[in-house]
Formats: sequence, structure tokens, C-alpha cells
Amino acid sequence: MSAPETNTTVAIEQQQVAELAAQVEDIVLGPDGNPLSKKALKKLEKEREKEQKRLEREAREAAERSAREASEVDCAKENYGKAPINMSQAQTGTKWTEVKDLSAELAGQTVHVQARVQGSRPTGSKMCFLVLREGTATAQGLLVVNNETISKQMVKFANSISSESLVSLVAKVVVPSEPIKSCTVGDVELHVSKLFVISEVSVTLPFSIDSASRSALDYEKDPALNRVLLYTRLNNRVVDLRTTANNAIFKIQAAISQLFREYLTNEKFTEIHTPKIISAASEGGANVFRVDYFKRNAYLAQSPQLFKQMCIASDFGKVYEIAPVFRAENSQTHRHLTEYVGLDLECSFREHYHEVMNMIGDMFIYIFKNLETRWADELATVRKQYPSEPIQVGDKPLKLEFKDAVALLRKHGEVIDDFDDLTTALEKKLGRIVREEYGTDFYMVDKFPLAIRPFYTMPDPENPQYSNSYDFFLRGEEIMSGAQRIHDATLLKERIAACGVPVDDLADYIRAFEYGCPPHAGGGVGLERVVMFYLGLEDIRYSSLFPRDPTRLEP
Amino acid sequence: MSAPETNTTVAIEQQQVAELAAQVEDIVLGPDGNPLSKKALKKLEKEREKEQKRLEREAREAAERSAREASEVDCAKENYGKAPINMSQAQTGTKWTEVKDLSAELAGQTVHVQARVQGSRPTGSKMCFLVLREGTATAQGLLVVNNETISKQMVKFANSISSESLVSLVAKVVVPSEPIKSCTVGDVELHVSKLFVISEVSVTLPFSIDSASRSALDYEKDPALNRVLLYTRLNNRVVDLRTTANNAIFKIQAAISQLFREYLTNEKFTEIHTPKIISAASEGGANVFRVDYFKRNAYLAQSPQLFKQMCIASDFGKVYEIAPVFRAENSQTHRHLTEYVGLDLECSFREHYHEVMNMIGDMFIYIFKNLETRWADELATVRKQYPSEPIQVGDKPLKLEFKDAVALLRKHGEVIDDFDDLTTALEKKLGRIVREEYGTDFYMVDKFPLAIRPFYTMPDPENPQYSNSYDFFLRGEEIMSGAQRIHDATLLKERIAACGVPVDDLADYIRAFEYGCPPHAGGGVGLERVVMFYLGLEDIRYSSLFPRDPTRLEP
Repeated sequence: MSAPETNTTVAIEQQQVAELAAQVEDIVLGPDGNPLSKKALKKLEKEREKEQKRLEREAREAAERSAREASEVDCAKENYGKAPINMSQAQTGTKWTEVKDLSAELAGQTVHVQARVQGSRPTGSKMCFLVLREGTATAQGLLVVNNETISKQMVKFANSISSESLVSLVAKVVVPSEPIKSCTVGDVELHVSKLFVISEVSVTLPFSIDSASRSALDYEKDPALNRVLLYTRLNNRVVDLRTTANNAIFKIQAAISQLFREYLTNEKFTEIHTPKIISAASEGGANVFRVDYFKRNAYLAQSPQLFKQMCIASDFGKVYEIAPVFRAENSQTHRHLTEYVGLDLECSFREHYHEVMNMIGDMFIYIFKNLETRWADELATVRKQYPSEPIQVGDKPLKLEFKDAVALLRKHGEVIDDFDDLTTALEKKLGRIVREEYGTDFYMVDKFPLAIRPFYTMPDPENPQYSNSYDFFLRGEEIMSGAQRIHDATLLKERIAACGVPVDDLADYIRAFEYGCPPHAGGGVGLERVVMFYLGLEDIRYSSLFPRDPTRLEP
Repeated sequence: MSAPETNTTVAIEQQQVAELAAQVEDIVLGPDGNPLSKKALKKLEKEREKEQKRLEREAREAAERSAREASEVDCAKENYGKAPINMSQAQTGTKWTEVKDLSAELAGQTVHVQARVQGSRPTGSKMCFLVLREGTATAQGLLVVNNETISKQMVKFANSISSESLVSLVAKVVVPSEPIKSCTVGDVELHVSKLFVISEVSVTLPFSIDSASRSALDYEKDPALNRVLLYTRLNNRVVDLRTTANNAIFKIQAAISQLFREYLTNEKFTEIHTPKIISAASEGGANVFRVDYFKRNAYLAQSPQLFKQMCIASDFGKVYEIAPVFRAENSQTHRHLTEYVGLDLECSFREHYHEVMNMIGDMFIYIFKNLETRWADELATVRKQYPSEPIQVGDKPLKLEFKDAVALLRKHGEVIDDFDDLTTALEKKLGRIVREEYGTDFYMVDKFPLAIRPFYTMPDPENPQYSNSYDFFLRGEEIMSGAQRIHDATLLKERIAACGVPVDDLADYIRAFEYGCPPHAGGGVGLERVVMFYLGLEDIRYSSLFPRDPTRLEP
């Protein structure tokens, strides 16, 4: 990532320019770049004196005007100002109207609204337009001096409100002569009669909501427009998150979890919560964060894998968990986070792990179909700033075997080994091939080579070089990894030894299977990845509220 | 906690007894306790020889019988045995019946069942009873030698299956002559015709499910019954969790989260996920776990407090999060965990924080009422082993002010200061008083003293010694703490300074309010505490799947 322009570097540059300017002030250059003659200097001095007098006169007049205005009776002085801090002084029973609910149906009525001032625009000294924003809805506010309820001072106050300040206002709902195109509420405007600032922005904003809300299309039309870099957005995430696209991205993130739970609750799964602080780096030593735990070493769980399997050994039958997982992977890529939200599930079965695999496939179809219908507004909002096509998907997910995927890639010119893992580039190419040949953006790849899967993966009974494991892909990128797990303690110990994992760290886990455990399969989904690939976002940091990577711990 | 009897100590004691026995073997004592005469010794020796011969004869006969049996044609040898490990070799399309679904409606039908053998009881050599358990349901299985489909060898095999092993069986559903009282399925039994072990328990169980399932009432009836201590349960949690009470406890835990989400989703809250790894111990320096983060120091979040407030500053309006929270508190009590599940919410409001406080109160009532109706079976199951009365609660929660609570306690003999925090003992006493005077187990205490609340708490506008903060209580124990938060940056900085919190660690947080933030309030609930107090459990570890405390990191 290239070094971005931060507030600090801008401030430093301004200071340097000011210092250089101070050094050259005494040497006066003519239009040709050479120092001026004495005569010309004298002339210039006279002009300067004249200019100085003009400025002084103007300042004097402004002061007089200001004093005159101050002494004028402000007919509206009760109707505006800065409200005291809300400390819950009173409950007035006022009925408040949300900006999104403003419509021509309310025309003529007086409403109470709380909103942010996204921007203001004076028109002469007698009129002021406000863009009022509440959530993802915007409406136009208007103040016109009438020397009764609205004074010149009040309009001046309205104009002076800093962007993003929160106001409480009383207004009449009026249908304008022509619709307001610049706001989401187009059929009415608010004629403000009372206006109080309830939370003032007293510092300079890092960027405007307008510039943070621009799409690729806006930049195509006008390449000179200011761009807000991801780095700057994340450093100032609280302001960045106020854009309607970001608001919608996190509504969609929440929707995916909600649909995941809906489907699994209906399938009689039980939600569980497993510990994140664990005694050993039990899933493999690398990529694990160490924690000081009362003078002992502890570690952050890389997944709930071992614990959700222990719940299966405890006869919980079907379990899921939504919780943070931690990966101390020192890779600064567009699709890695050191902390992300895992949607994990584990399910006992009777005969064949495809019972579970197919169920998970159906679950994703359920999630995708419901997103497009029940969250259509939010999807449209995101796609306005970040254009993407809805995914192509049928009623059942496509199922390929790993060896079929290898064959497809070879057919398209790739030279690859039978048992090597697919690189990210190959996965993406496979995604394009599958889309062309099968017309779907979502598919499951089954029967991965055993050697590239974790120790707890059940080998394929027909060919022990393969395994009963699967990955799910969306637009050519992996969103879930899963498998039938080994439920037999003896076989498990063999595989642990074969994979070179320290068996002592896994004592409690192995014992769970010695106490008897049904066959089971499951998987783990990265929530931010599903959001990212579903919405076609360029970087996973767009789909994490406050992302964490090897260099980012703040905000 | 007193030192509990563990498996290790039992094993050591048994070894000591065996060693002492070996030392005294050569000295033979008569019934009077003195060594025997030579004559008596000789007589004893003869008796011993006779006994020796009898044992040898019996062993010879048993071996012959065994050989004869082995050579006998086993008419049922295809019908039982140890199944190969399920590696998803086949999908047969078999229809499986769950134990809980067995009933007289199925009488005469042949069913396929997978279940654990909770216990077996031979009746002569021709018959064997099995207690079959699946989830929380149990049924009786029966094998009788018929020399056609069931051989003596098969019955012997059934008898030899170790407790808690999983079996797959085919059986006929038969209505017994009288109901089976010892199983949850009482109106039918299973006449087994095929029986295969699919997961064998090959080690000694730490305790039986029967002994782990006993209630206080069982011990009242028979004080000599073996007790499974909490410490032993937790060391062997996978077996412990198989009891029907534990299974139900965690269904209720999941239900509380589900109802929390149901209520808040209906109120238009958005679910969020905030980072657990943070850069500074920002909520106050103590009680925080340190993490190695790529050669820097990082910390585990003690709550999502600062981040959920930042989401309010980002105009998310209403947010909630269900996620682990971490407290490095070195206190080994019945109600503290170092990692627990936080149900957190934060909500902007227009006028008064009571809008939010009352909503949260209504939410709890919704949770409690729905638990009693929709999870009545699970509650009954828990209460069978851990008897408790359902909580008393009306349609609206009782609301007290802190000063009223102090007055109530004083009225009942306590000498306390106006502004001191209530001790756990005082809270419990208050719970008893409130139950007596108001007939409710659930109430809210409002307006806590400012000095005993965190820096972000909004002071009371009328009396700055108090604050706009509240705790919710269940059976006299705190289950939620919340408040109106300070949304004004200037006041916030004042309070941070007054509380002596390092302001630099809070830079991003403070900036969120400088960019403008609506008034808001919220709270944080400890999920395990709600489960514990609602069910009247004695220790919070009963309501955590794999609890973590200062000395426990495993399993």
C-alpha cells in the first residue's frame, strides 16, 4: 500500500510553505521574475497603503454593522441556538418524525425532527438551505427571514452550523414546486421554524461524507474529484461509517448472520459459545496469538473446531457458533484479517457426510436468495457506490470433485499436480471457468487431497490420498472450508502422529472420542469474506467495522 | 473450594490398600484376632488346596464351554458385532427413527435407531436389557435368544457393550405388558434384531451418567449415593455435558440469546461485531489480559463499550453484540469467570435515557415470559435435577432509585452510606426485601452514585453526586449494568480527567464525539449470569460450556 496523505502530513507541508514564504517576503519581484526598480517599488508601496486603508474601512463598517445587528431586536432569539447537553433533563412526550418517514402525506403538518446537517447553502442573507440526514435518508430544510419567527440572525446561525453537527428542529412539511433531486426524500421539504444544535462538530472533519460516498462512476465523469483512500477511511472510521453504503454493508453483514441462524435454528441446531482463551496452540503451532494468563501462557483460539467437536461427543447433535477467531498470520493482503467473525457449525450424521455438506449448500442458497429479496434496499444502496452484479446461483449448489476441478484447469491450459493445493490465482481462474461452463458463481468442491487438510479430516475410504473434505466458493474465492471429522480415537491418534502435531496438547480432545462419538461433519465460514465476495468489494477491510491486520490495531 | 476427590486420589488410595494387604498376607489370624495354631493352619491349608482345585476345574470347564460355543454355529453372526469406522462408505437411504419419536403409534413396525447404550442388564444367559439414550430421550431395548436371528453369542455381545458406546440397531417396536418407568419412552420397547457398535468406549468413564444426573432429592433419600463434584465434572466436561440437565441448560442458554435477538431485531437494532484485540487497556488499566501482537503489546477487550458507542457516533442508531468479553480478575468465586459471553446493546434516544432503560426492562420480561412457555420442557428437565422455583415477575419491571434501595436496606437494619456501592451481601438482602415487599424477583435500580460508575457515565442533571445509570437484578443478583453515556466531548474529557484515566489511550474514542454524536444509553448483560440466576444454579461454571477462571484453562 502506498503512503497515503494523512492530516498530519498535510499540516507539516502547510507549515513548510509558510516558512518559505516568510523568508522571501522582503524581496519583491516583478512579473518578469527580477527585483523591481526603486520607482516601481514606491508605486507599489502607495498601492499597498491604499489597500490597507480600504481594508481598515471595511473592517470598521463590518464592526458597526455587527454592533447594529446585535442591538437590533432579534424577533427569533427563542427559536434557535445551541441546546444545553442532553442529560435527560425532561421527558416532554414530543412525537418525533424520522427523516425517512417524511412524505407528501404529512404536507401541512408540523413535525419534530432530529438529524445531522450534512451541508448548508446560503442564498443571500435572507435564506438558507440545509441538507438534513438521519441514517441513510436525507431531506432538504429551508429557512427564510420573515421578521416574525425567523430573523436574519437565525438564518446566519443556520448557515454557520458546521457539517455533521446534530440538530433538533421544528418544521412545517411543504410540497416544493419541483421535486428535490439531491435528497432521498424528494417530494417534500422542511420549512424550519425552530433550530437547535444538540451536538456540535467543533473540529475539522477528515473528509466530507459527500467525498466518502463517491462511486467509480463519479470518478469516471470527473477524474479530478477528491478520493478518500481506504487507509484514511479506516483511520477515521467513525466518520467513514456514516456513508449510506457503509451503513448498508453492515446491515447486510448482520443479515447474513441472521439468515445463517434462521436456517440452522429451523434445522434444530443449538447455538454454543466456546472459549477463546485456550491452554495450548492446539490446532498447529504457528499463527497463534499468545496471552499472559495469570503468569501462565495461554493462546487465542484459531477456531472453535476442537470444542464444537467435543460438543458433538457430548451428544449436542447439531451445533453452531458465531464468534471472533484469531489468526496471527503476518500477511498484509486484501483478504486476510488477524481477527474475524467465524460462522461455525458441526453436525452429527447417520451414514454419509454428504448429508451435512448438502445441508450447508442449501443453507447458503437460502442466505443468498433471502438477501436479494428481504435486503434489496440495502443491496441497491451498496451497489450504487460499489457497483457489482448480483451473483448467479441456481436452486441447488453445483458440486465438483477436486479432481474434476484439476481437470477443468488443465483443460484451460494449467499445468498442475494431482494433489497440490490450489493457489488463489488458480481458484479465481476456476471460478471464471465454472461460471462460463456451468453458469453459477457458487459451488462446492469435494474430496480434497488428504495431505493438504488438517489432522482431524476423515480420509476417503476409496482412495486414502483424498479425504472427505470440501470447500465452498463464491465468485472463485473460498468462503467455507469443511469436512467429515475423524470420530474414532485410534485413527485420530494415527493422523495426529502422521501430521506431526504434539499429541499432549490434544489430550482432552482425544479423550472426547475415547468416550464414544458419533460420525460428524461441519465447516467454518468467514463472515467478512462472504460479505466481501457477495458484494464484490475490493478489500476485506470494507466488510469489517474496525478491521485488524498486522499493522492495524486502531481505532 | 475444598480439595475434591479426583480419580487420581482414588487410584492412589486403592494402591495403598493393596500394598498393606500384601504385607499382612503371610500372617494368618483366627476369628479371635490371634495367629492360628499349627493344627488349625494345616486344616486351613487343606481347605485352600481344595478351593484351588475347584477354581482350576471351573476355569477348565469355562474354557471348554467357550471353545464349544466358538465351534457352535452362530446362527446370528451377521446380526451383531463392531462396525467398521464410518468413513461415509455408503448412502443406503435408510430411514432412521429418533428415540424421542418412538411411541405406540409405531407398534409392530421395524425401525432403525442410532443411540448410546447407557447401561445393560443381563437376565440369565438368554436375555439382555439395554437402556438406549439419544439426546435427552431413553428407551428400553431387549434381546432374547431365539436360536434363529438371535444367538446366545449375540446376547453375550450385547451384555459386553461398554456403557456410553454408540450402537446402530434394527428393532421391532413392541408395546410391553406394563409401562417402562425407568425410561423417558415408557409405552414401547425395542426388540432388537441387529446390533452393531459404531463407536466403542474403550476407556474407563470418569463417572456414570446416572451418578452425574442425581438431584438433591436423590441424596436426601440416600445420602450414601456417590456424588460427582463440580471439579470432577469440569475435568471431564464431555461426559458431564451428556446429562439431560446439562443438555437442557445449554438449550436455555441458547434460548436467552435467541430471545434477546428476537426482541432487538423487532426494535430495529443492527447486530455488530467489534474487535476483541485492542491497542490499549482503555477501560481502566487493571483486569486486562495482555496479548503478543506482532512484537507489540495488545489487550483483550473487557467489553465492546467504546466500540458500540463509536457505532452510535457513526449513526447506526441501535446496535447489539453477542460476543466473548475478557476479565483478568484474579477472583475464584461462584459468580466470576475470566471469559464470558456479553449481550451488549447501545441505543440513541431523543429526550431521556428512560426511553432506553424501559425498553431493556421490557426486553427482559419478554425473555422470561417466552422462556417459561416456549422452553417449558427444557426448564422442567433442569429443575428435575436442580430444583428451583420459576421467578416471580409482572408485566412491567419494578423500578427503584438507588436512594430508595438504600432506604429499604436501612429500614431492615443495615447501616450504610448514601454513596457507597452495595456489596454482594447487601444486594442479596435487597433482593429478599424487594421480593417480600413488591412480590417480584426482577427489578431495576436507577440513579447510582456517580463516583462508583465508569468515566463515560452521564451525571444526573439534578444532583451531580448521582448519575443516569442503572443496574438490573434477578433474584437479588446483578445481571445487567447500564447508563446514559456522555455524548459531549468536552464533558467526556472532564470526566476522564476526574477519574484519572489516561486520556491518550482514548484518542479515537473521544474524537468520535468531537465529530458529533446523539444522546444514547445502553447496557451489558452477562449471559452465564442470567442462566445461573434464572435457573437458581449454585455456581456460574454450571452455565458455561467450558468455563475459564484464574486456575482453569482446560478442557
